[in-house]
Amino acid sequence: MQIINREQIEQVLPQLDLVPAIEAGFVAYSAGKAVIPPVGEMILSRGEVHLKYGYIPEDEYYVIKIASGFYDNAALGLPTGNGLMLLFSQESGQLVSILLDQGHLTDIRTAVAGAVVARQLAPRHVRRIGVVGAGVQARLQLQYLNQVIDCREVLVWDRGKDLLGKYQNDMASQGYQIETTLDAAEILGECNLVVTCTPAREPILYASDLLPGTHITAVGSDTPQKQELEAAILSRADLVVADSIEQCLERGEIHQAIQAGEIGQLDIVELGQVISGEAVGRTSEEQITVADLTGVAVQDIAIATAVYQAVDTLHK
Amino acid sequence: MQIINREQIEQVLPQLDLVPAIEAGFVAYSAGKAVIPPVGEMILSRGEVHLKYGYIPEDEYYVIKIASGFYDNAALGLPTGNGLMLLFSQESGQLVSILLDQGHLTDIRTAVAGAVVARQLAPRHVRRIGVVGAGVQARLQLQYLNQVIDCREVLVWDRGKDLLGKYQNDMASQGYQIETTLDAAEILGECNLVVTCTPAREPILYASDLLPGTHITAVGSDTPQKQELEAAILSRADLVVADSIEQCLERGEIHQAIQAGEIGQLDIVELGQVISGEAVGRTSEEQITVADLTGVAVQDIAIATAVYQAVDTLHK
Repeated sequence: MQIINREQIEQVLPQLDLVPAIEAGFVAYSAGKAVIPPVGEMILSRGEVHLKYGYIPEDEYYVIKIASGFYDNAALGLPTGNGLMLLFSQESGQLVSILLDQGHLTDIRTAVAGAVVARQLAPRHVRRIGVVGAGVQARLQLQYLNQVIDCREVLVWDRGKDLLGKYQNDMASQGYQIETTLDAAEILGECNLVVTCTPAREPILYASDLLPGTHITAVGSDTPQKQELEAAILSRADLVVADSIEQCLERGEIHQAIQAGEIGQLDIVELGQVISGEAVGRTSEEQITVADLTGVAVQDIAIATAVYQAVDTLHK
Repeated sequence: MQIINREQIEQVLPQLDLVPAIEAGFVAYSAGKAVIPPVGEMILSRGEVHLKYGYIPEDEYYVIKIASGFYDNAALGLPTGNGLMLLFSQESGQLVSILLDQGHLTDIRTAVAGAVVARQLAPRHVRRIGVVGAGVQARLQLQYLNQVIDCREVLVWDRGKDLLGKYQNDMASQGYQIETTLDAAEILGECNLVVTCTPAREPILYASDLLPGTHITAVGSDTPQKQELEAAILSRADLVVADSIEQCLERGEIHQAIQAGEIGQLDIVELGQVISGEAVGRTSEEQITVADLTGVAVQDIAIATAVYQAVDTLHK
């Protein structure tokens, strides 16, 4: 049994080809080939804990992820999010590896899903990338988009100038030309590939600013309450894609738009179906597309397996 | 963060006072003071995995237990059962300890629950202890009964002479006088404290053999299908006690007896209520009492916390 700490994980991450690994996970999920029990949840006075777990029968392992968010942790000098992943043998139930990633692999697999979506749905010519939010996920999204999108021009929005300045500095080394704005409407006005990465509970982007040929990946909203996009954006879109239709009916932007009566369940296709070709993706440069990512256990299975195998190979 | 292996766990177990710790867990559970989400379950082609988790708000930790049973493991030279327990801080969600117990603490906390029940419900004068089954749990039950019951005379039943001989040898060192039988009826005929520890799916003990003044602790049945006691035994009993009423309505002997129409939900009291005095326990030496143990996450919380604290103290 191998215990893998965060340093070891960060060491192998750059060498992993995660986009195809997570694409394969989404395809298996949408084809009904993944066994994913309902998410376990435990609410405490200072935080909450989620258990995501499952397996793809043709794989070697099953994966259990424990992820927590404790909202007063900053006062303790600790990060809000935390967690670990556990890998077990499908043959014997033996514990194969404990990945002490402290929630980092959840951030990474979420960013990789952004790249997976962009590869499928971004317009061929990305003029400028728009990033809503300037936190950890807003950094990782650009880092992984790098692999699948040529454009290096970025406009980033957030509420605070300090946050934006820090983001600009941190990301400059990655080869992006980054400009900032405090006016969220500029994002939809100037960018045709947009990623939203905030925990907002009120819309930040509005349908009145939406131009033809835009793709939006909504990453921030993963609960029934959170919302970054005005619901009318989804009804204006030519294509609305969910990472998991089942989950997106309960949480995220699609949930909000259905509640608002802007779209119906039949207007949604699933990401794995678009990847496999079972559903049609973007068919013209003029189309508006929206993808809603709420996070699916197949992503955890894919990344945990890839990290474990890479570390294991290093030790052989 | 402390990783505790099985050797370290076995080293501290003898010094732990687990009966009061697990009694307190049952009391908290029955008083509605424990937060125990529904058990998570994952079925695979060769086995199954259960996730039990929860916390008592006034404690320091929350506990997640992962337990598996893989039924072809003997062919691989591996034990059927396996698992681990994880201890996290209720204040911050930080991982405090990983207990690599390989399922051993589940066996122990189940045996301790047998002692907790015996302390509450056994007749004052135990003539002879009857044990149904000769496996791991049948050994541990005697080991923990030792602390709460004076009687050292034991009659053990199982289907095979070899199993019984091995049991007799293994347990002799613990100060018990052990006799064996291949006739299960002798158990109820000769013993007034009986513990059943088999995975049977058909009754082994029958109401026609039941004598006044007997207490039976049914440990083996923890699924909707398993059954060791004829349902009429529960209707003949003066008192039927569940470790968790909610769970026992779905699985175990009480579930079987309710399905058979032998008892109703209102005939059952909960172990924690008996311990706290909120419900009446045994009131005479002539009463027949039955306790049904299906395993509750508060037991896992109590034992994981006790083991971690003992190991942590050793290291200070």
